[in-house]
Amino acid sequence: MADLDIARAVTAQPIGDIAKRLGVPDSALVRYGNDKAKIALEWIDGQKAKPDGRLILVTAISPTPAGEGKTTMAVGLGDGLSRIGQKTAICLREPSLGPCFGMKGGAAGGGRAQVIPMEDINLHFTGDFHAIAAANNLLAAMIDNAVYWRLDLGLDNRRISWRRAVDMNDRSLREVVTSLGGVPNGAPREGGFDITAASEIMAILCLAKDMADLQRRLGNIIIGQDMEQRRFVRASEIKAEGAMAALLKDALKPNLVQTLEGTPAFVHGGPFANIAHGCNSLIATKTALKCADFVVTEAGFGADLGAEKFFNIKCRKGDLKPAAVVLVATLRALKMQGGAQKGEYADANKEALVKGFENLARHVENLKHFGVPVVVGLNRFAQDSEAEVDLLRQRCAELEVEAISCTHFADGGAGAEDLAHAVVKMTASDTSEFRMLYEDSLPLWEKTRTVARMMYGAQGVIADKKIRAKFQMFQDGGFGHLPVCIAKTQYSFSTDPDLLGAPSNHVVPVRDVRLSAGAEFVVVICGDIMTMPGLPKHPAAENIRVNAAGEIEGLF
Amino acid sequence: MADLDIARAVTAQPIGDIAKRLGVPDSALVRYGNDKAKIALEWIDGQKAKPDGRLILVTAISPTPAGEGKTTMAVGLGDGLSRIGQKTAICLREPSLGPCFGMKGGAAGGGRAQVIPMEDINLHFTGDFHAIAAANNLLAAMIDNAVYWRLDLGLDNRRISWRRAVDMNDRSLREVVTSLGGVPNGAPREGGFDITAASEIMAILCLAKDMADLQRRLGNIIIGQDMEQRRFVRASEIKAEGAMAALLKDALKPNLVQTLEGTPAFVHGGPFANIAHGCNSLIATKTALKCADFVVTEAGFGADLGAEKFFNIKCRKGDLKPAAVVLVATLRALKMQGGAQKGEYADANKEALVKGFENLARHVENLKHFGVPVVVGLNRFAQDSEAEVDLLRQRCAELEVEAISCTHFADGGAGAEDLAHAVVKMTASDTSEFRMLYEDSLPLWEKTRTVARMMYGAQGVIADKKIRAKFQMFQDGGFGHLPVCIAKTQYSFSTDPDLLGAPSNHVVPVRDVRLSAGAEFVVVICGDIMTMPGLPKHPAAENIRVNAAGEIEGLF
Repeated sequence: MADLDIARAVTAQPIGDIAKRLGVPDSALVRYGNDKAKIALEWIDGQKAKPDGRLILVTAISPTPAGEGKTTMAVGLGDGLSRIGQKTAICLREPSLGPCFGMKGGAAGGGRAQVIPMEDINLHFTGDFHAIAAANNLLAAMIDNAVYWRLDLGLDNRRISWRRAVDMNDRSLREVVTSLGGVPNGAPREGGFDITAASEIMAILCLAKDMADLQRRLGNIIIGQDMEQRRFVRASEIKAEGAMAALLKDALKPNLVQTLEGTPAFVHGGPFANIAHGCNSLIATKTALKCADFVVTEAGFGADLGAEKFFNIKCRKGDLKPAAVVLVATLRALKMQGGAQKGEYADANKEALVKGFENLARHVENLKHFGVPVVVGLNRFAQDSEAEVDLLRQRCAELEVEAISCTHFADGGAGAEDLAHAVVKMTASDTSEFRMLYEDSLPLWEKTRTVARMMYGAQGVIADKKIRAKFQMFQDGGFGHLPVCIAKTQYSFSTDPDLLGAPSNHVVPVRDVRLSAGAEFVVVICGDIMTMPGLPKHPAAENIRVNAAGEIEGLF
Repeated sequence: MADLDIARAVTAQPIGDIAKRLGVPDSALVRYGNDKAKIALEWIDGQKAKPDGRLILVTAISPTPAGEGKTTMAVGLGDGLSRIGQKTAICLREPSLGPCFGMKGGAAGGGRAQVIPMEDINLHFTGDFHAIAAANNLLAAMIDNAVYWRLDLGLDNRRISWRRAVDMNDRSLREVVTSLGGVPNGAPREGGFDITAASEIMAILCLAKDMADLQRRLGNIIIGQDMEQRRFVRASEIKAEGAMAALLKDALKPNLVQTLEGTPAFVHGGPFANIAHGCNSLIATKTALKCADFVVTEAGFGADLGAEKFFNIKCRKGDLKPAAVVLVATLRALKMQGGAQKGEYADANKEALVKGFENLARHVENLKHFGVPVVVGLNRFAQDSEAEVDLLRQRCAELEVEAISCTHFADGGAGAEDLAHAVVKMTASDTSEFRMLYEDSLPLWEKTRTVARMMYGAQGVIADKKIRAKFQMFQDGGFGHLPVCIAKTQYSFSTDPDLLGAPSNHVVPVRDVRLSAGAEFVVVICGDIMTMPGLPKHPAAENIRVNAAGEIEGLF
């Protein structure tokens, strides 16, 4: 059965009932229909004195292109925890509209581990992405307008770094020349569009503590450089941050929905996991922690990127203390890591499994650096043999980490009860001794080297003189205390997606470094990063339509 | 007091109570917070057998650049009708986001004649504009994607007519070159962005009868021409209409809000009044007519454009029969039309008033062609002298039309009670003998000539051979039955904005003609039309911000 059909077969509970389970009163809800609501910021402000629940991060081994099912695992574990009587909330990223029409399809979980209403969440939801794109593009319009009217600002038309945004997969917009057509349209310049999830404003929204912090960060965005001294010019210098904040007033409120089994789910914010940190909003996670005893969340890409950024960026900014980590694995991904051929990942292949296990072992070892207890969640497929699953369990036991088979995709929360019990047990005595990989005070270059050595198993980091000079410029310019946000392939610990398993002694080449002064991190680019996807030859959009009953068909 | 402060001082009634007054049950509401709702299409479908209320159009004489207050008049009259015990609904266009940050400010009425929540309506509201932009840009992405992958389609990259859309005033995007950067980004081509209100999809949404009609129209959109025969290529040929319709599924549902005095107001759709027809959605108007005894609506620009298109396009497509017209005038606009100097419109100037009255007289005469009874609503300012108002009344009496002084801006509905009584009286006996200016069967060129002669007082219409050939091509191509949508300056009956009063015997030059095959009209362009506004030197955005209490400041 298609995800959409499974989702439609379930009758959503009124969102007020879901909120009540978390102690969120009706007066704190801003409803969007009967099954979605935003939570008022004033109410959230009033919860600060409450103790926090336990925060569980779901991350994954190095994935196959299909992904290992972090979202379904987070939903399944949330439902499993609910089933065994724990007051639970799930925190997920909002899906981006663009990929729905391309190849990837929806991103609200799958099978019997979904959040609903699936169509709404995948399409416009509560309008957050549109608000972010509008704020992004208002800033762009104000920048070009300032150049058009106000030469006194000194902004160098050739050095405007701010790009436009649209929530669409549209390769044609990656590189454009704007302001053609003569003087009334301005002076031509090169520019481009990113997909909304890649906008710095998305990262800002996801890291802002409150409205005032959001507005402050928006003002700090670097829009370009000035003519004379290449000084960074900020959004606040063209007075853009207030109107941008006004556009984001509702988007900052976390969204509450539910899983198919009625577990409350905060689905809020969705920054890219390469040029940003790939986690749902801090404000949603902090709100969930005040409302539930267990909060299950996930972070984009494999653990070398997703978990690392979750810990070193999100937990650092939000003063969060994660209680446990679930490392998602599939036999398919392990076999791929062990050298199995494409198309044969589902076949029995003990040798590849054993070899690929090195990848899992490295991720476990990495996670131990953070001092948080780890459990392996095996996202089990019907075809997976008992023998191979046993083998995985056994190898994990040698690493002193438990591996638990989960079938939530087919069975819902019942398929993740064992994992839920394990999570409750491993967090009962508060064994987490969470620590980050580096201090704020470590220089930016050293931060990068620390991550490369401790997470990627690299010998070190290299960069051209020009790039090293940029590091130095940011370091000297007062940004040395920021964390680094590394953009790298998710398919390998190295920067070469074909280097599988657990490569060691490789070198990480840094191609560029960029300052996200509003989001408050420094993006270290180690590989190609795509900030605007394209559509495939036959995009999914071709099969989507609204039927006679007014229902959407073909969204998957 | 600023509009926003007036709006904030009023406590909105729960939207469910507002709906109840119209007989719309709770089950038919999709709430957006406590003060906004969409109405389910299934419920609307079920109301077809009900009789219609009386439809009152608010239109205006040729305006000053500040506008004559059609929206405030529509709101004031609606509140006035409510006050005298009539079951009333108001139908307005949704404001565009872009102009809020430019010069114009908000567009939800003003003074004590506003719809609320003012900030929400002016910013993202229920997301309709964003959904329209997304559908517009999905089509654009699919077009470029089809060119990228599928040369078999034969679409000529140089003849793609579909533009992108963004709800922002951004002159830099008027003319752009896309797909730069080499093969992975496609082949460079010229293109551009319109503001969302100018997208053909906005016009389609506003004229669609239901979801199926919307999807059909979307498929009919012309995206460009093919390589061989310059045949028009439609959106359906790249299978885009279904996914676009899915994006518009919620946007098609009419939005319900309220005035400051609690009169129900449908605020839905907002097409430009030049390249489109400038009226709120047909679906909202038809729903309102099923729910209320009086429905007050407005149409963009002066009556020569707004009322003409309302009658010849919207009423034709929707089979509407308007019961009366309110022609809004101000002494200022009359004096401007009579030759008063800029900056002196508020000064006593009997001579200019008398001379400018010719403009009003022409509009009244024009409206009589449609067979609908007319009343003049004088939007009165505090400084307007009694003597001048009397003079206006007297001259109107000579035309056998009543002129009624209204002070709703200062006094709310109480200031429009006289007008409300007049409207009730003039529609009591159903004296409307509504007829359109032309039949479907009249050729496109003749339709244009009919409007030019009967509405603009022109001698005739001229066009280059090339343009006449385009008329013929549309005529022969099976589009001859469509109505014409004329794009012309709103400041004069002629195509010269400086030709004031009631010019006669001028000639209307047609500069271009374009087919909106999805919206189902032919746009006849008689002058410059701006489909993407720019920002002023100091845009309003500079003064907007969110204060410590989380409220928006500076939006006006």
